[in-house]
Amino acid sequence: MKSVYLDHIAATPIHPLVLEAMLPYLREQYANPQSLHSAGQEAMAALEEAREKTAALVGADGAEIYFTSSGSESNNFAVKGLALAQRDKGNHLVISAVEHQSVLHSAKSLEKLGFVATVVPVDKWGRVDPEEVRKAIRKETVLVSVMLANGEVGTIEPVAEIAGICRGRKVLIHTDAVAAAGNIPVNVKELGVDALSLAAHQFCGPKGAAALYLKKATRILPLIDGGIQEGGRRAGTENVAAIVGLGKAAELAAAEMVPRMSAMTALRNKLMAELPRRVSRVVLTGHSEERLPHLASFCVEFIEGEGMLLSLDMKGISASSGSACTSKALKASHVLLAMGMDHALAQGSLVFSLIEGTTAGDIDYLLEVFPPIIDRLRKMSPLYTKYLEEKGQ
Amino acid sequence: MKSVYLDHIAATPIHPLVLEAMLPYLREQYANPQSLHSAGQEAMAALEEAREKTAALVGADGAEIYFTSSGSESNNFAVKGLALAQRDKGNHLVISAVEHQSVLHSAKSLEKLGFVATVVPVDKWGRVDPEEVRKAIRKETVLVSVMLANGEVGTIEPVAEIAGICRGRKVLIHTDAVAAAGNIPVNVKELGVDALSLAAHQFCGPKGAAALYLKKATRILPLIDGGIQEGGRRAGTENVAAIVGLGKAAELAAAEMVPRMSAMTALRNKLMAELPRRVSRVVLTGHSEERLPHLASFCVEFIEGEGMLLSLDMKGISASSGSACTSKALKASHVLLAMGMDHALAQGSLVFSLIEGTTAGDIDYLLEVFPPIIDRLRKMSPLYTKYLEEKGQ
Repeated sequence: MKSVYLDHIAATPIHPLVLEAMLPYLREQYANPQSLHSAGQEAMAALEEAREKTAALVGADGAEIYFTSSGSESNNFAVKGLALAQRDKGNHLVISAVEHQSVLHSAKSLEKLGFVATVVPVDKWGRVDPEEVRKAIRKETVLVSVMLANGEVGTIEPVAEIAGICRGRKVLIHTDAVAAAGNIPVNVKELGVDALSLAAHQFCGPKGAAALYLKKATRILPLIDGGIQEGGRRAGTENVAAIVGLGKAAELAAAEMVPRMSAMTALRNKLMAELPRRVSRVVLTGHSEERLPHLASFCVEFIEGEGMLLSLDMKGISASSGSACTSKALKASHVLLAMGMDHALAQGSLVFSLIEGTTAGDIDYLLEVFPPIIDRLRKMSPLYTKYLEEKGQ
Repeated sequence: MKSVYLDHIAATPIHPLVLEAMLPYLREQYANPQSLHSAGQEAMAALEEAREKTAALVGADGAEIYFTSSGSESNNFAVKGLALAQRDKGNHLVISAVEHQSVLHSAKSLEKLGFVATVVPVDKWGRVDPEEVRKAIRKETVLVSVMLANGEVGTIEPVAEIAGICRGRKVLIHTDAVAAAGNIPVNVKELGVDALSLAAHQFCGPKGAAALYLKKATRILPLIDGGIQEGGRRAGTENVAAIVGLGKAAELAAAEMVPRMSAMTALRNKLMAELPRRVSRVVLTGHSEERLPHLASFCVEFIEGEGMLLSLDMKGISASSGSACTSKALKASHVLLAMGMDHALAQGSLVFSLIEGTTAGDIDYLLEVFPPIIDRLRKMSPLYTKYLEEKGQ
């Protein structure tokens, strides 16, 4: 059976050159970078090289990059650490309704410590209106966190505009760029953000390596307290191999971004255009243009995402119905609900995410097997039967 | 030049069988374990197998193991998460003076949130007196955290006895077993602890994989909020390859512990006996018997640790002068000071940590090159000159 992997928003394969860069640090070069002996110093040099490469991907300086173990850790570090460091200034945050769970739940944890979070709404394409952020900022506001691109519907947010508003009000802004960094051009200076999260496994780097960009001279409290690693801001023995992999993946993504993007955009456009043409009652979710180049997302009426995923899997196609971080909860996505989507329709969410190596044949195969799968599932759907009856068929 | 690596307390090499187990998850099996498709389910099955193996190393059930990215993260998760989950019960903690920075600084962070920490002292061998813990517990005490073995001086703490006291007072107990687990037999039921931290890179597993054992039905707040990973208690895409490596390393450590320990103990004993015989004014630090089998630690009078490390490095020997997590701070170790050691002597700290593959030849080489190194360094030491003058030589 043909095997077509279209769930790269959940994790990408490690690029062969990235793994090659990592392997020495999984074999003979196992020293702890904090050790004073030469083996330790070599490990430290590898970390610092990776830091420079990671910084270069987002237009930052090496000294502004803090390595973490996941995008979720970076988001927790930023939201909690920046808020708690400014406790004397105020206790109010602004986040958007479509943030990743790691931002939403960090805000909830802060609420238990006396903070108050305002959640700004999005439009039907999942876009935050910068004016809503402006209205939400109060004199007690110490942090705004709005993501750069949404990993469930692909929509890119107007972060530069929001950052401009924050600067005017002297409020720090963090952006969760986990789905964006390495997949579209990201520049912290052009965006004007104070903090930005990214993760290697979103752009052909390994799991277990991520980073927080933190603008120079920005105060933050550690999430993980302890030793002197990462300038005393993130304790724990550094995962040298994974960090070296992040650096290499960042270097490759920066060098190959334009051809990667154009190849993926062409295939994604075909999928976005053709899928709703071949199956009735399928809607595109997210913005049609301001979106990630490698993500096509839909809602299929009358069926639940899980059934579609399992049926696709039986045909060798791997896809998702939303964030991997919540997929098994099988609840309607908070992102789709925030976009005003009907609860039943939101249950039919389906996300296809491409990679450099995705081929036209992969997309054609999906387009070929998808209509009969939906036909079969709809025949078993009480909602669909009811719809047909009401339609008088 | 001969190369002798004796800094395994900072990091161990990955066992070849561990790397072999990891490699498929760095290559073709890159799916996210939270994905519903079969590739995701295979990744999840690998995680669960690693969870069972990790649990078996410490006599726990798989459902009691939570994967993290480092020993420091496990310690932060335990200390902060257990304390904050019991805020309604009380605001007092008890820790020992020789805890790792990640426990000490977690307690300090909790103090900023209204908690109070009592730091119990240790004797000259670095041992906590369980009676001191008993005296320190108040009615507001919600957590005791005392390490199982100290990574700087090797001393093993009477955790089972302390845990008995905690049970009697209905106070939770966490133990930082990062230096111990995988190197000496550890059983959570025999110890009677509620939480225990361990890390793979201490026993021939990879960096980036660690765990917190948490006794069933124990309440904890997440350190990293977000998705549904690890039962909703630790968010972030799982580092599948590293976790699989942790599981394999745990399996190997459990199977080979007795021969590994006896081989290392014999060489360590030789080093502990011979080094103070070959060089004057060298004292063993830590307990002479109740200590880790792979760690020999000393203080060398009249010289600073850094000079010895660099001189040893020039002879191909890698060692440390204390915790890798603080080595570059070049401050006297808080562990040695807590043991009542004179500040100047504490500066001369030197730690040699062995591994299964350490040979008698390695130890002989160290014993051979060490005396001339110390001679040369002491000749440059004003403290030594003063000592000789006072001695009338």
